[in-house]
Amino acid sequence: MIDKVIGIVMGSDSDLATMKEAISVLKEFEVNCDVNVISAHRSPERAHSYAVEAERNYDVIIAGAGGAAHLAGVIASLTPIPVIGVPMPTSGLGGLDSLLSMVQMPSGVPVPTMGIGKSGAVNAAILAIQILSISDPQLRQKLALYKKKLADEVAKKDTAVRMEFGLL
Amino acid sequence: MIDKVIGIVMGSDSDLATMKEAISVLKEFEVNCDVNVISAHRSPERAHSYAVEAERNYDVIIAGAGGAAHLAGVIASLTPIPVIGVPMPTSGLGGLDSLLSMVQMPSGVPVPTMGIGKSGAVNAAILAIQILSISDPQLRQKLALYKKKLADEVAKKDTAVRMEFGLL
Amino acid sequence: MIDKVIGIVMGSDSDLATMKEAISVLKEFEVNCDVNVISAHRSPERAHSYAVEAERNYDVIIAGAGGAAHLAGVIASLTPIPVIGVPMPTSGLGGLDSLLSMVQMPSGVPVPTMGIGKSGAVNAAILAIQILSISDPQLRQKLALYKKKLADEVAKKDTAVRMEFGLL
Amino acid sequence: MIDKVIGIVMGSDSDLATMKEAISVLKEFEVNCDVNVISAHRSPERAHSYAVEAERNYDVIIAGAGGAAHLAGVIASLTPIPVIGVPMPTSGLGGLDSLLSMVQMPSGVPVPTMGIGKSGAVNAAILAIQILSISDPQLRQKLALYKKKLADEVAKKDTAVRMEFGLL
Amino acid sequence: MIDKVIGIVMGSDSDLATMKEAISVLKEFEVNCDVNVISAHRSPERAHSYAVEAERNYDVIIAGAGGAAHLAGVIASLTPIPVIGVPMPTSGLGGLDSLLSMVQMPSGVPVPTMGIGKSGAVNAAILAIQILSISDPQLRQKLALYKKKLADEVAKKDTAVRMEFGLL
Amino acid sequence: MIDKVIGIVMGSDSDLATMKEAISVLKEFEVNCDVNVISAHRSPERAHSYAVEAERNYDVIIAGAGGAAHLAGVIASLTPIPVIGVPMPTSGLGGLDSLLSMVQMPSGVPVPTMGIGKSGAVNAAILAIQILSISDPQLRQKLALYKKKLADEVAKKDTAVRMEFGLL
Amino acid sequence: MIDKVIGIVMGSDSDLATMKEAISVLKEFEVNCDVNVISAHRSPERAHSYAVEAERNYDVIIAGAGGAAHLAGVIASLTPIPVIGVPMPTSGLGGLDSLLSMVQMPSGVPVPTMGIGKSGAVNAAILAIQILSISDPQLRQKLALYKKKLADEVAKKDTAVRMEFGLL
Amino acid sequence: MIDKVIGIVMGSDSDLATMKEAISVLKEFEVNCDVNVISAHRSPERAHSYAVEAERNYDVIIAGAGGAAHLAGVIASLTPIPVIGVPMPTSGLGGLDSLLSMVQMPSGVPVPTMGIGKSGAVNAAILAIQILSISDPQLRQKLALYKKKLADEVAKKDTAVRMEFGLL
Repeated sequence: MIDKVIGIVMGSDSDLATMKEAISVLKEFEVNCDVNVISAHRSPERAHSYAVEAERNYDVIIAGAGGAAHLAGVIASLTPIPVIGVPMPTSGLGGLDSLLSMVQMPSGVPVPTMGIGKSGAVNAAILAIQILSISDPQLRQKLALYKKKLADEVAKKDTAVRMEFGLL
Repeated sequence: MIDKVIGIVMGSDSDLATMKEAISVLKEFEVNCDVNVISAHRSPERAHSYAVEAERNYDVIIAGAGGAAHLAGVIASLTPIPVIGVPMPTSGLGGLDSLLSMVQMPSGVPVPTMGIGKSGAVNAAILAIQILSISDPQLRQKLALYKKKLADEVAKKDTAVRMEFGLL
Repeated sequence: MIDKVIGIVMGSDSDLATMKEAISVLKEFEVNCDVNVISAHRSPERAHSYAVEAERNYDVIIAGAGGAAHLAGVIASLTPIPVIGVPMPTSGLGGLDSLLSMVQMPSGVPVPTMGIGKSGAVNAAILAIQILSISDPQLRQKLALYKKKLADEVAKKDTAVRMEFGLL
Repeated sequence: MIDKVIGIVMGSDSDLATMKEAISVLKEFEVNCDVNVISAHRSPERAHSYAVEAERNYDVIIAGAGGAAHLAGVIASLTPIPVIGVPMPTSGLGGLDSLLSMVQMPSGVPVPTMGIGKSGAVNAAILAIQILSISDPQLRQKLALYKKKLADEVAKKDTAVRMEFGLL
Repeated sequence: MIDKVIGIVMGSDSDLATMKEAISVLKEFEVNCDVNVISAHRSPERAHSYAVEAERNYDVIIAGAGGAAHLAGVIASLTPIPVIGVPMPTSGLGGLDSLLSMVQMPSGVPVPTMGIGKSGAVNAAILAIQILSISDPQLRQKLALYKKKLADEVAKKDTAVRMEFGLL
Repeated sequence: MIDKVIGIVMGSDSDLATMKEAISVLKEFEVNCDVNVISAHRSPERAHSYAVEAERNYDVIIAGAGGAAHLAGVIASLTPIPVIGVPMPTSGLGGLDSLLSMVQMPSGVPVPTMGIGKSGAVNAAILAIQILSISDPQLRQKLALYKKKLADEVAKKDTAVRMEFGLL
Repeated sequence: MIDKVIGIVMGSDSDLATMKEAISVLKEFEVNCDVNVISAHRSPERAHSYAVEAERNYDVIIAGAGGAAHLAGVIASLTPIPVIGVPMPTSGLGGLDSLLSMVQMPSGVPVPTMGIGKSGAVNAAILAIQILSISDPQLRQKLALYKKKLADEVAKKDTAVRMEFGLL
Repeated sequence: MIDKVIGIVMGSDSDLATMKEAISVLKEFEVNCDVNVISAHRSPERAHSYAVEAERNYDVIIAGAGGAAHLAGVIASLTPIPVIGVPMPTSGLGGLDSLLSMVQMPSGVPVPTMGIGKSGAVNAAILAIQILSISDPQLRQKLALYKKKLADEVAKKDTAVRMEFGLL
């Protein structure tokens, strides 16, 4: 058993390429995470047990799923901890189906939903870190550095593009 | 406990006006039905127990839900009997969210989905009757009469409209 | 003539790659199926005769079509047996056109609609099997095994992914 | 039996308010029309007979339908005469379902589709008149007058609005 | 100058691959056509002169355009002859923009709209032929043969697929 | 004839309620405007003459239209001055058709497009003023005041809401 | 100045009816909140100062906005604390514009997005409470009670509906 | 520091391939431009300073961004000069998210929005030139030549296509 912190769960191993983005961010912030493949529809009893035990194991859950993407909602219905949803892109509808299946939850059971695909997975990890950092000043500091790094990277790209056009 | 046949379940009592259409059709065909309000998200344990006991109680289930409409999928994940989905209309997105949340199920766990709203509820009942009628010749005969009635009603409307325009 | 059970029909042979998914599942369950290419629009008289004879030949029909996907509806209008619709993906609109053309049927004539594409074809077959299994305990048992297999496959993927991340 | 010219057909008498717009235009142009209520799904045999006899009775057909709007396509599949489609507005999806079900026909079987609702019904009549006017110079002349009237009405509204703002 | 019959016009030579489908069909039916590249937005005066002279040169016009696809509407506003619209697929929105820009015309100025892309181009030609065949029995006969050929092709594909599955 | 400045044009007098928002803003800024009702489709020759004379009469044009909203594009194709588009809301598709018909212009002929409806009309006027203010410092100053007024109004609402909740 | 906890901010006082749902839930949980009307676009400097001071004043922010709904993103770009987005319904597009403007944030700057409208506002408050409850066992307990209450309410509605149908 | 005229800014260097289209057009018209990479979300302080200094540096700004595309709106909120938005195509939703995030701005803060992708970037440059040409007769003349060139290019393509079909 790993240390209690962030549980990452995805509906299929085909979601792994996307969800690895979240795992990398957590690793970068040295936040522990657990990873599972659990399907709300194909392994419902496992989803159920995962959800009812979630409070003991995790502080926050990140759930990625696609199509009729119920995984996050199913878990959120059974645990009081935050369950962040990452909608997978889908071949036909571009992920609009995944997005609406996650975000349009009924009153009382939120699934905080991220953007479709890899950016969404990165942001799920950042959100999880933001949540933990409320009571963890060191993590909050790392977030400040991360934000600074984001700005620095943009500034570097700005410089590179401006040089390309002879503006520097 | 009512007789085993069709289980009708809806995510909220605000879906009742729509789902009554299904109940009326079943009554018209003298097919027994049971009716429940169960929310996949707000009463998940009840949804779970309903689903695992479904095979003993019902031949077919009709599940109406709206928004991130997971009810049909949650039940379908836990029972081998057919679970027909009726997507509720929603104020913002007109029911497109309900439709996509129901119809885009992953391989292995079908939710046969009807049209949005009352027509969908009527049709869920007709489908349930079609399914039962495979091994029930009397019900099959009623379906033939129903189809005939549909055609007759259109013919009557045709006559009325043609008279209105002086074409008869 | 093959044995009476599931009729599979598609609007074009370009739908075959998708519809083969349904055929495979039926074969896996040892359920007989018949396969036809019939276009509601290009071979309408054939569609008509197929539909009026359907009750004698099949218990359930699975119809795949794309774009203005009328095939399932046309057949459903002429037979009392269940006609399951599989919307084909389309290049421009991703299959949204196929989906809406199938699912939004008027009161009285249901087309139980599956998800867009291959998952939808698999699920059409599973639904057909669910329907037959209502009066076929052996088939019901196979469905239970299938559901177990689905869960086992997810569990295997879970193990593989967890090993990849050193969590096992 | 009325004179051969334009056949107007609608899937339900609830479409009449919309389709009356087409009837009015035809009356204004003194073009004969026949009016029927026929459902592709609820009175399929009647739709079939209407379609196969259409060539003898009509030069052009105007078909209004909503939701999974197959009426125009079903008729077009069985007759060589032009079948103009008028998509009805729908409560949930605003008529997008009707539009896509009509317009996305497969190669070989066109359904020339109009805009959603009353403007579409007016335009279906104008198109029918445009078609007839190819071999009817008098009708062509009426169309020229109609176009002039359209422009004059806009000019009158222009004058009224400009007066309201003290620009005339 | 070619013989008067069908004018084919497209907004850009990038539409040619699609519009060639219409040209092929017309050639197959031995119906004369003229072909032009004219942009409603980039060569508006040429579009204007084309439209005002259209009645003298053509019986029917087929206009293909993409994005904010105004070409068909611009021509239709200036000529009493039928102007059939073929919406081009677009990279971002799959042609939904082209479709809505064409089909949603105001009262009085119809643009009979086909499906998006190559099927739409084929169908535009078939519709033009249907229109001409109203006063051309020989063309009507060719249409009957064409419809038969469509059905025969489907039947051949049916045979091929059934042989593949050992059903023949 | 009014002074040269902003030409406001709309496709129908039913657009007036929306377009009045633009007129009010221009009046507030004491910028002259001319107002016309001209339909790209119903009064195409008038649209043409308006467009070719636009450069002499106006600095900027604001064009409101709905559905297959071609008015702005038609004018933009014939004049070098900026033509701002305001998409009207539509009953069926909520104005998405108007928006896509305006915004998706081909390379070389821009239609700067505003939001759907009244906010769009207000913003069209503000944009016109922003454009004029490039060479009119007094107008620029008024814009600064307008921006300040916007912020002040928000601040007042902030105060009101905070008082309502006892936070002030 | 109120106690540090949840900052609620909305883009316009017309969003208040929706956002009150969030305020009520927080009051029910006895969680302090602050309420502001701040527009990302009309009072950008105020939005900026609100955001840069947010970390000192709040643990979590809930931001409601509609249309091109940038408020949550603007604040999230400037603060390390979680900023939950509530997309407002919009008249034309039903809130799809608000939803996509919020949820599709770039890598590094999450806006956890709720469903459109009142359910979304309720859920934003619940999510905020879930976040606070990670380090507040008493709040966690209240959440457990809240979840129980949700289930109880559904059970009551179930009873009422079943009595209505004579099933109890 | 380059001469004051057009500021081009993009949210990411991945937008450069698209935005280069705008730069090329400006170069063709010998209009000076400045180019920057600035992210509304990842470098918000830089976006803020860019916006507040914009009036001193530029006459017009062209801002390209994708997804929750706030860059143009953020800048427009802080400067009185016109800020033209170019929505980037996105993999999942084809740029519909970018488009709606830009175009649906609230009353008082316009973002004149172009079409999605490269055509939009070209048109943003043309619009900027149209704006400058209001007080620059030489630029106006270049625009007239540009319009003529557009028409000439279409005419050449017309000739080429007509020759291909033996029509010339």
